[in-house]
Amino acid sequence: MAASTPIRQRRRGHDPESVLSIAVGVFNERGYDGTSMEDLARALGVTKSAIYYHVPGKEQLLARALDRALDGLFEMVADHRAVPGPAIERLEWVVRHSVRILVERLPYVTLLLRVRGNSPTELAALERRREFDRFVSGLVKEAAADGSIRADVDPGLVTRLLFGTVNSITEWYQPARGGSADELADGLLKMTFGGLRV
Amino acid sequence: MAASTPIRQRRRGHDPESVLSIAVGVFNERGYDGTSMEDLARALGVTKSAIYYHVPGKEQLLARALDRALDGLFEMVADHRAVPGPAIERLEWVVRHSVRILVERLPYVTLLLRVRGNSPTELAALERRREFDRFVSGLVKEAAADGSIRADVDPGLVTRLLFGTVNSITEWYQPARGGSADELADGLLKMTFGGLRV
Repeated sequence: MAASTPIRQRRRGHDPESVLSIAVGVFNERGYDGTSMEDLARALGVTKSAIYYHVPGKEQLLARALDRALDGLFEMVADHRAVPGPAIERLEWVVRHSVRILVERLPYVTLLLRVRGNSPTELAALERRREFDRFVSGLVKEAAADGSIRADVDPGLVTRLLFGTVNSITEWYQPARGGSADELADGLLKMTFGGLRV
Repeated sequence: MAASTPIRQRRRGHDPESVLSIAVGVFNERGYDGTSMEDLARALGVTKSAIYYHVPGKEQLLARALDRALDGLFEMVADHRAVPGPAIERLEWVVRHSVRILVERLPYVTLLLRVRGNSPTELAALERRREFDRFVSGLVKEAAADGSIRADVDPGLVTRLLFGTVNSITEWYQPARGGSADELADGLLKMTFGGLRV
């Protein structure tokens, strides 16, 4: 949590970006519901009464953090139209870029994956996740229809397992010693699209 | 949570098995750390003072619940020696049976996957999980060494991604409408061992 924030900066006060980054670290460590404004004040190194100068409220921080993850995914959805070639190429591109977003925005994606729908903010995030799932599922169906991926596994199951594999990276990936996003994506694509069997 | 426990049984009192099952439902819903003995009493339909007649303590319930998941995995580790054939066959068998254990013991495996090491009980469970991971990783290495699975992905990464895929099933599987354990395992094995590409 916030281990990479230099002490000097924490003492000097915070721009909105560092407030968000530190808060997401606390949410992931203690759980969003288990985090109090006092916990946030302590992590930011400010007094309990000064916290409202930095943070309008917990839920607003949560919304901004979840958007950080979701905006990355939806920018990619928009971009994928520029990818030439058949559906399977676009699907592989989407999986590769999802791994990159996960690695680059790890704490934000980790937070997103823990959301269970306990507030309007969480429900809105879940609805955007489902929209992203429908987009991926559409690509899988397209690739199955044009015969480029196997037709003997339900496209809905493929979508869930494929993104279950991608999302599981949040469970163990450590930026300092895990491989790069591209190395991870290479291994994942080889296993899921190429198959482990020689 | 305990939605499938008939009301009559909850009113009549509880055998240790139903206490465990109801408690695990509450742990998964509220988080283990967020669950109080009062929450457990409410879920069991007993008074706060009667709860200690049914439950010696939260941590003992947690230990029994985690063993329910881990014992299943280690019985399988012992059994796999009876599987004939090369390492890749034993690895596929282990993946298939892991899916079955996950489906049959869903709330217990879900609880296990959320353990972060906050107590001696949790640390012991994490150590057993790591032991299981080493076993799987050994099988992956053996299969890579005899040339039956691809050698261009690190066996450690294969192990993590493969069991990341298996474990991600806990995120969405609903016993009432998800497929059977065998259907799930078929789809998962086709994707990861066979590959999606035609």
